[in-house]
Amino acid sequence: MKKIINKPENYVNEMLKGLYVAHPDLITYTNDDVRCLVTANKKEGKVGLATGGGSGHLPLFLGYVGKGMLDGCSVGDVFQSPSAEQMHAVTKYIDGGAGVLYIYGNYNGDIFNFDMAAEMADFEDDIRVESLVAGDDVASAGPSAPGEKNTRRGVAGIVFVYKVAGGAADAMLSLDEVKRIATKAAANVRTMGVALTPCIVPRVGKMGFSIGDDEMEIGMGIHGETGIRRGKLETADEITVEMLDQILADLPFYSGDEVAVLVNGLGATPLDEQYIVTRKIDEHLAGVGIKVHRYYIGEYATSLEMAGFSISLMKLDDELKTYLDAPAQTPFFVQL
Amino acid sequence: MKKIINKPENYVNEMLKGLYVAHPDLITYTNDDVRCLVTANKKEGKVGLATGGGSGHLPLFLGYVGKGMLDGCSVGDVFQSPSAEQMHAVTKYIDGGAGVLYIYGNYNGDIFNFDMAAEMADFEDDIRVESLVAGDDVASAGPSAPGEKNTRRGVAGIVFVYKVAGGAADAMLSLDEVKRIATKAAANVRTMGVALTPCIVPRVGKMGFSIGDDEMEIGMGIHGETGIRRGKLETADEITVEMLDQILADLPFYSGDEVAVLVNGLGATPLDEQYIVTRKIDEHLAGVGIKVHRYYIGEYATSLEMAGFSISLMKLDDELKTYLDAPAQTPFFVQL
Repeated sequence: MKKIINKPENYVNEMLKGLYVAHPDLITYTNDDVRCLVTANKKEGKVGLATGGGSGHLPLFLGYVGKGMLDGCSVGDVFQSPSAEQMHAVTKYIDGGAGVLYIYGNYNGDIFNFDMAAEMADFEDDIRVESLVAGDDVASAGPSAPGEKNTRRGVAGIVFVYKVAGGAADAMLSLDEVKRIATKAAANVRTMGVALTPCIVPRVGKMGFSIGDDEMEIGMGIHGETGIRRGKLETADEITVEMLDQILADLPFYSGDEVAVLVNGLGATPLDEQYIVTRKIDEHLAGVGIKVHRYYIGEYATSLEMAGFSISLMKLDDELKTYLDAPAQTPFFVQL
Repeated sequence: MKKIINKPENYVNEMLKGLYVAHPDLITYTNDDVRCLVTANKKEGKVGLATGGGSGHLPLFLGYVGKGMLDGCSVGDVFQSPSAEQMHAVTKYIDGGAGVLYIYGNYNGDIFNFDMAAEMADFEDDIRVESLVAGDDVASAGPSAPGEKNTRRGVAGIVFVYKVAGGAADAMLSLDEVKRIATKAAANVRTMGVALTPCIVPRVGKMGFSIGDDEMEIGMGIHGETGIRRGKLETADEITVEMLDQILADLPFYSGDEVAVLVNGLGATPLDEQYIVTRKIDEHLAGVGIKVHRYYIGEYATSLEMAGFSISLMKLDDELKTYLDAPAQTPFFVQL
């Protein structure tokens, strides 16, 4: 296990201490618990936005707490849900009197704990809490009968939902309005990923799965969940078109649509490769008549040191554009 | 070779096309050559700042062209110097009548070509060009007799020089003043790196060097140049203290000094690990009475998919602080 760490059991808390040291103007913590991360710039009267989830995905989840995006994040161990108590503590801190919206990924542990935290906040503190479970991963879509439970995992596309919700909350809209707009964002985001190498959870100390030196796995999840196709590594252009076509067919996206594009490195993939992919996305989308409003390229939701990337598209209307384009400042996301 | 690429010979130009597609508001190119990258927001009367160097180090070098930092960058093949002609074309484009300052790393190919480009700009276009060769890598310091040629390689610390020079140029100072201030910044920056895994140059297709599964190399350069000590991988805290103590002794830094700190991932090292290191840096500097003015953490100067990180410190005075803190916006660096 080749990692720059101390004791694996201290991995998350030491990482968090580094964050607080580096970004004191933007983030702090509550409840005497470094895993209850909250904004250092609370705005009274604003809807509070909270997320939470396992560590190992930086900048996800905690990296989007700051100005104009999220207000709090409960932080779990690597690939583990934080506790309901931690989510509850964050909720109490960030409530500015206008209620709190939870936005988190579609994982059972997180759902269970966030539901319990919402009940605690309602029952003990009389805080109104609404929840939005984001599931943008096309590769984990189950049978799609209307009304069925969403089986899609939440992956990098949740960053778009954070940004849009953050813009709406910062405009001092009501909880109902922020939830409506965030729900629209989530409904219009689709993501596909590809993995080239596994990652190692520090406490486990060995590879989460094995994959051949010349293989890739399309559709793998950010914890190494099985994807939809394993095969020989192809060219950047071939991989990009395969992933993009699955995304486009899923929503579906049509000629004339306008989108935001997120190209996300999973941890060990050089930025150069992400830009090579971006070039092909631009060419392919132009070919099918889809207009790109803006690009985001870099590491937004990683899997420790996994090599690979994901592509997320969000279909835009004027309202989503307004809140996507609004300024924001967090330790990992700055937009003027 | 597990890379998300097309033909290796198209690696750099395809990456650049992705950059222009994603950031049209900030960058463009001149001379009909995508490798002659320049700002999309030229300011007349401002000193032009140019850099250049090989690819494979994103965000270095080209990623710092934008507002408030650099104005142009000539882009070489992976780990190769761009040509004097490309540097010359960039120089002509970015000159706003106040002259041009070259700031680049201490590598023979770059020095040769930049010197030739400066002569061409002077002789053919009557543009006054000054040069600053940055060498911040403590590990490559040769015998340090006063007046001897600097043998130090330019590594991640050059980003501090770009930022300070960019702030000074944006304040519309003269070429002499911008050079004086940038020279002071460069003289006060020191860097040490450690590598855990090698990287693969796309056209070469195999590892640049080999290193044991339980080994690290302290002081390795960003092209895999030999470092100063290879040994068993130690804990994050041990590695951090060893690197930091060499940096502190080199300038030297004293109790009471104020510094900026850059923790830079080399490509495949998770952000979590960089923050674990940051936590220890903060503790160690506090212990020796050095105050941290601000932290920068993330990928600033990489070596493709190399695992490892570097630490850079810049000793500050009021003037350096002013220009370090000035706002900037480039594809990879946004500061409010």
